[in-house]
Amino acid sequence: MKAPDWRHDLPAGLLVGGLLLPQALAYAMLAELPPVAGVMASLLPLGVYALLGSSRQLAMGPVAILALMVASATPALAAAHGADPWALALLLSLEAGALLALAAALRLDALAALLSAPVLHGFVSGAALAIALGQIPKLIGLNLPGSTLLDWGRFFASGPELRPDAWSAAFGLGAVVLLVLARLRRWRLAPLGVVALAIAAVAALQAGGQALGALRLTGAVHLLDGLRFPSPFALPAALWLQALPAAALIALVAYVESLAIAQALAARRQERISTRRELVGLAGANLAAGLSGGLPVAGSFSRSGLLFEGGARTRWAGALSALLFLVLVSLAAPWLARLPHAVLAAGIVVAVLPLVDLPAFRRAWRYARAEGAVMTAVALLTLLLGVEAALAAGVAASIALLLQRTARPHWAEVGRLPGTEVFRNTKRFQVELLPELLSIRIDEGLLFTNARWLSEVLGAELARRPQARHLLLMMSGVNDIDLSGLEALQQFAQELRVQGVQLHLSELKGPVADRLMAAGLADWLPGRVFRTQIEAWTALSREAGDPLWVSP
Amino acid sequence: MKAPDWRHDLPAGLLVGGLLLPQALAYAMLAELPPVAGVMASLLPLGVYALLGSSRQLAMGPVAILALMVASATPALAAAHGADPWALALLLSLEAGALLALAAALRLDALAALLSAPVLHGFVSGAALAIALGQIPKLIGLNLPGSTLLDWGRFFASGPELRPDAWSAAFGLGAVVLLVLARLRRWRLAPLGVVALAIAAVAALQAGGQALGALRLTGAVHLLDGLRFPSPFALPAALWLQALPAAALIALVAYVESLAIAQALAARRQERISTRRELVGLAGANLAAGLSGGLPVAGSFSRSGLLFEGGARTRWAGALSALLFLVLVSLAAPWLARLPHAVLAAGIVVAVLPLVDLPAFRRAWRYARAEGAVMTAVALLTLLLGVEAALAAGVAASIALLLQRTARPHWAEVGRLPGTEVFRNTKRFQVELLPELLSIRIDEGLLFTNARWLSEVLGAELARRPQARHLLLMMSGVNDIDLSGLEALQQFAQELRVQGVQLHLSELKGPVADRLMAAGLADWLPGRVFRTQIEAWTALSREAGDPLWVSP
Repeated sequence: MKAPDWRHDLPAGLLVGGLLLPQALAYAMLAELPPVAGVMASLLPLGVYALLGSSRQLAMGPVAILALMVASATPALAAAHGADPWALALLLSLEAGALLALAAALRLDALAALLSAPVLHGFVSGAALAIALGQIPKLIGLNLPGSTLLDWGRFFASGPELRPDAWSAAFGLGAVVLLVLARLRRWRLAPLGVVALAIAAVAALQAGGQALGALRLTGAVHLLDGLRFPSPFALPAALWLQALPAAALIALVAYVESLAIAQALAARRQERISTRRELVGLAGANLAAGLSGGLPVAGSFSRSGLLFEGGARTRWAGALSALLFLVLVSLAAPWLARLPHAVLAAGIVVAVLPLVDLPAFRRAWRYARAEGAVMTAVALLTLLLGVEAALAAGVAASIALLLQRTARPHWAEVGRLPGTEVFRNTKRFQVELLPELLSIRIDEGLLFTNARWLSEVLGAELARRPQARHLLLMMSGVNDIDLSGLEALQQFAQELRVQGVQLHLSELKGPVADRLMAAGLADWLPGRVFRTQIEAWTALSREAGDPLWVSP
Repeated sequence: MKAPDWRHDLPAGLLVGGLLLPQALAYAMLAELPPVAGVMASLLPLGVYALLGSSRQLAMGPVAILALMVASATPALAAAHGADPWALALLLSLEAGALLALAAALRLDALAALLSAPVLHGFVSGAALAIALGQIPKLIGLNLPGSTLLDWGRFFASGPELRPDAWSAAFGLGAVVLLVLARLRRWRLAPLGVVALAIAAVAALQAGGQALGALRLTGAVHLLDGLRFPSPFALPAALWLQALPAAALIALVAYVESLAIAQALAARRQERISTRRELVGLAGANLAAGLSGGLPVAGSFSRSGLLFEGGARTRWAGALSALLFLVLVSLAAPWLARLPHAVLAAGIVVAVLPLVDLPAFRRAWRYARAEGAVMTAVALLTLLLGVEAALAAGVAASIALLLQRTARPHWAEVGRLPGTEVFRNTKRFQVELLPELLSIRIDEGLLFTNARWLSEVLGAELARRPQARHLLLMMSGVNDIDLSGLEALQQFAQELRVQGVQLHLSELKGPVADRLMAAGLADWLPGRVFRTQIEAWTALSREAGDPLWVSP
């Protein structure tokens, strides 16, 4: 690892350390955990990532979406076993870290592809909206249970009495106004300033003897409490098993989001990052979080941007930000007790709303309706039912779309462009055909999803050309033939043999040809194998009659 | 529907009706239901299929594998709700029929593709072996609980006392010897003869005052009992829901097996069958079974073969077989009470063992190791854990293999075959290259499973060619670009722009080009789009230096 580039890394680290203070407290609140759970997630994991990761600009630590995932996973687990939610969050950190380490060891980084673009965008937008909606009651001093629209619907259906609190609203809405103004001016450390301002205001009001009513304050943040975290190892084995699906989703989201941020920033500096070392770095950071009392961690969008703009040159910048954060928290600890929850909620709302990317939905619908539908469904499910159901449904839908795509591949009857050796779709080009030859190009591997359908299509096409004595399959687009494809081809060849039609193949790709030969192609093919389409055409033209001209 | 061809359909129907008698009784025993549940499955469903189906040779009715699936699904359902197993079997028939009807209405026949060749072969072999193993205790007068090796392992671990029965063994093993001899001689109606012989022997022994000890007999078969079947509509709604996954698997297996048999037989007569009408016919047959007291039904391998060899010409032959079966059963009913279970078990063993297709496993392993592994795993899981777990795991594994296949597509650097307009893989052909141009052909759609990986591969390849100023992607093999692929391509173009490398595309397929243009290709592509590879080569050769010769 390179030595720190103090001139660049120190200022960048200072900036990010300053932003970490309000975010660590806010995301712990979002995860419904004591503030120190966010503090601990902002110390050791950053150092471990600096040692193991590969990105120079990725700012590790607590992030809003993982905090929401923790908040949505823990209640069910805690209810079943009466466990401490903090211990459960640590369990999730440990398991997510262990799964990431396993993925690194088994080179499973390709699994990240399961989170396709529509699922990821739909999920991030839906989760950001869910987070923002969830904070609005806190902004005005209300407390609603649960984190999904369904939870709130049930709550409101029970006809509760709602009493917003004036002081909370004043602090919360005031902070929102300040933060939005600061964002417009690109004052990146404004959240820290607003926190300081709010603490000063509360202190002044309290000193003036003002009763602050129902204004909820953060309460004392004792750093030593961070070292007295509950042990996840005391939790029963059944819980470890039960928490695995949630941990797997946390690991997947943490990895895909971190990778996207790191790759986007690296590209702007002509650097490349290693997907596998990112996996290792993220695994280490989460294991460190779980062992040192912290929430699950990932790369933060806002802090990474700050690290980049601050000019970080080596991975030390991230570690330096943790050090500065430690100093800041130690100094500010006695004061943080006076920080209103409403101000933290304001910080969360302003931080996550830019993640709601409505134009991405419009682009997706325009590009591919099915994918736009998946994106919208995942966003709505995230809002309505929660993150786990939405992600699981999204991944399943992406796989179903892929299966459907391979199930109905493109194929075309081809003929010869007159005077050339080129063969093209008869529907698009004016080509020559031979009366007794039907030649079809298949633009997809022969796979279990399409093998039966393709042999039916070919059979039907042949039935429309009763004079054809030869069927020539142009295999230039067939990258693979699986066992189902092989069997369908064999059965089809058998049917053609009964009908007295010869089945020929041309332009087989090397690996496909090798495997077909090994599977005894010569024994069951009632025709010949030609290297190129033009060789097939020339050889068969003697038997298949004089060329005809066909227009599309 | 054509009029019956009496000269051909009657003899074929008679043959099959004769074989139905022992099989209907045996498969009801295999499903652990009263004999009439098999009888009822052999009457009405055959007539309904004749009206709705499309195959002339498919012999509908009870089959061994569905009987095993019923036996494996019902105990858990019955235990939870204390329901009658016969009522549960009817529920499965009804639900399987309804699902098949739904699939026909929504044109979901493509879902049959989910049962890929390795899963189907592994399952059929494993199930046949499980059935045969399950009958061996009955052959010698033992009764073991459950239907999987795991069940038996638990039973033997409990240290039971085992007392085989001499008379059962005499009848069972005697029947096996006769049936194997008959099979070698291709006496297709031997099972009926063996049944008659066994009944006569029992009658003679009983008349002679011989005590037959623990020999289990079928017991009286009263046809009227078949009309007094328990109503599945009396079962609680929760059970209907709980039975759905098992019913879906039964529907899937029934459809895929029936279709495979019907297609294979139709091809031998140059006939084509309609996959959708098969779905309708099978749906009707199963609904009829569920409403008239019968087990779930499908096309039988052995009886369909007999119908074909008997010369059936129209779908009336199947209906005629049901009529003859009705006559036979009515006449034989008083005698069937004396039929030993061991003889039915012998019939089952001899009928299913040919379905264990060991050479198919060897072929699969040789053709594609991963698919051979799936086939073996499905067979073992069927034996060890039962049919539902095995099928679910097999379908999941097939999908995983497909994802993996698209995740790492083939790509190649291409150069020009000197003096031609043809571009080929630089690793296989002696081609020309331009020093400042890197040209790569991608042989798969750009999809969420491979988009990120491909842009990394391209980036790495570019890093090895620092003098390249142009990257030309030959898109002739790219049949589709999904949203993830589009975003990866856009991000990659952005990275190249920073590096000062131009990204060009050639040979885009029509539909792909249309969608890229609609998504604003011109705005983000830092290069040009060429219709053909040779046009790109000609245009770029002015900027990219003189050709070099490269040997593979």
